[in-house]
Amino acid sequence: MSMRIESVCVIGSGAIGSLCAGHLAQLADVSVLTRRENQAAALTEQGLRVSGKTERHVPIRASHRAADLPAADLVIVACKVTQLREAIAAFEGRAPDATVLTLQNGMGAEEVVGEHGSWPIVSGVTFMSGVRHSDVHVEYELDTATWMGPYHGTGTSYEVAAAIGELFVAGGLRAEVFADLRPAQWSKLLFNTAVNCVAAVTDLPHVGVFARRERDTDLGHLLSDLVAEGKAVAEAAGVELYEDPWEMNVRAVSVGQTGNEAYAHVPSMLADVRAGQATEVDFIAGSLVREADRHGVPVPLTRALYRLVKARDRTYDD
Amino acid sequence: MSMRIESVCVIGSGAIGSLCAGHLAQLADVSVLTRRENQAAALTEQGLRVSGKTERHVPIRASHRAADLPAADLVIVACKVTQLREAIAAFEGRAPDATVLTLQNGMGAEEVVGEHGSWPIVSGVTFMSGVRHSDVHVEYELDTATWMGPYHGTGTSYEVAAAIGELFVAGGLRAEVFADLRPAQWSKLLFNTAVNCVAAVTDLPHVGVFARRERDTDLGHLLSDLVAEGKAVAEAAGVELYEDPWEMNVRAVSVGQTGNEAYAHVPSMLADVRAGQATEVDFIAGSLVREADRHGVPVPLTRALYRLVKARDRTYDD
Repeated sequence: MSMRIESVCVIGSGAIGSLCAGHLAQLADVSVLTRRENQAAALTEQGLRVSGKTERHVPIRASHRAADLPAADLVIVACKVTQLREAIAAFEGRAPDATVLTLQNGMGAEEVVGEHGSWPIVSGVTFMSGVRHSDVHVEYELDTATWMGPYHGTGTSYEVAAAIGELFVAGGLRAEVFADLRPAQWSKLLFNTAVNCVAAVTDLPHVGVFARRERDTDLGHLLSDLVAEGKAVAEAAGVELYEDPWEMNVRAVSVGQTGNEAYAHVPSMLADVRAGQATEVDFIAGSLVREADRHGVPVPLTRALYRLVKARDRTYDD
Repeated sequence: MSMRIESVCVIGSGAIGSLCAGHLAQLADVSVLTRRENQAAALTEQGLRVSGKTERHVPIRASHRAADLPAADLVIVACKVTQLREAIAAFEGRAPDATVLTLQNGMGAEEVVGEHGSWPIVSGVTFMSGVRHSDVHVEYELDTATWMGPYHGTGTSYEVAAAIGELFVAGGLRAEVFADLRPAQWSKLLFNTAVNCVAAVTDLPHVGVFARRERDTDLGHLLSDLVAEGKAVAEAAGVELYEDPWEMNVRAVSVGQTGNEAYAHVPSMLADVRAGQATEVDFIAGSLVREADRHGVPVPLTRALYRLVKARDRTYDD
């Protein structure tokens, strides 16, 4: 089965949503669901600019109301997982022929989407990053790949995921398509649990000390212990990891150090903490802890970090 | 043996040093060793004011040079443990007949003092707290007791400790004197390790959530797990705790909540993190981890918190 993607609706106009919209708008009719009305007006009026790793300036149709947007072949859910339920509920009964691509951090977004429609779902895990300079300008910071594959909970075919991957690549993004995404998804889950939680409580961007294990007090020991706990959970869940999360950690800080001295990626949970926003920890460390409990695997360090981030997350008691 | 204390030298003019100097100056000649020359000048010129739980305004002899200060019967070491080595080194060969009272957080200050002189040492653990409003004004915030007892590493008698305790009480401070301070010292060490480390990484003052155990994600579970690790170390070290650190934690946040809605104590390690200063974590969590390693007791959560605070402590790599 082949799939022609002529129209794309992007839910969310943060950095990831903007990068998707900005790159795909040369190949398809792209509409964007924003949270704020004035942001939609600015995008419709001025278009969207991408700078950095690529340069684009594209027209965008945007609205803060799902009902105003045209039906689409592909719906890319690029909002934060903390906003997912409200956003996808607005699409219930709409875009009946669409395929939905989820790009949320952690695990569990597909289940939430599935509660609101019977769309075929493609799971995505993205490693690209951007900096939103304004409502109409995003900087493409890290041009690393987005991984995608048919969500095992729906009858989505590999070909559908492959067509989305081809669209990404044709638009100037990087993508890798997997028949079974879980090994990759779990690798990123373990990486994100360790790196994001430690960043959120130390207030450190993802820098070299995350991988240093010279002194006993060095942080790298903790990161590798967290990864070891996560690996035990993956094994109990029958998932063979695609990449070793510890090596992902080492590589990420090496790129940061050698590529550009001044560069230090601020993981999303730290960015949320600094901004006083709800973190995605329930879908990252939280989903790993729930899997651990399901399989009876002890994860004392992961649970401790989960509790520390919940405490640091000022929205916890709202 | 009785001991008359007619002169006192206080090393350090932070909140604790100022509270000692301000209260004891009505009963003895008090001199203060400051870090800064202009602070010494201000104290000498304007005296020291205490407000809050007590009201005092006393003359103080102060200098930033140990050599300028008169010999004393009692030397109270009230600087931070991170400044202890430099401060006590300046007293080497001086005040030969003095008794030294250490008031540092954590464990290990007495050993450092003992390396620079053969003074009898009285160990102290203080629970009072103050807010320095200026170089010449300290507010007496929490009028809780200072615990003291002869340091087991020297031949100090109980009577010497008792005389210091009586002086504190006569001056308007609260004190409890113990024949063996270790049970109390360890109780506070375990309390401080849990409360200070969690505060330092969550950026939270010591509030009710530190004792809450309703949801699985609640922070109280982590605090009680940390206390449980510490108790296992104390037991292996042959120390019977004076107070249960978990109950100290519960009581402290209850006082905070019911006594004054707006009150929330900022533990010293969090204050240091916020000020970008070196924390005392090496003498708090660090000394507990070293004791654990000495006795072969596993303390994975305490070690994790130690590493997180070291990473958060921006002076770690200086």
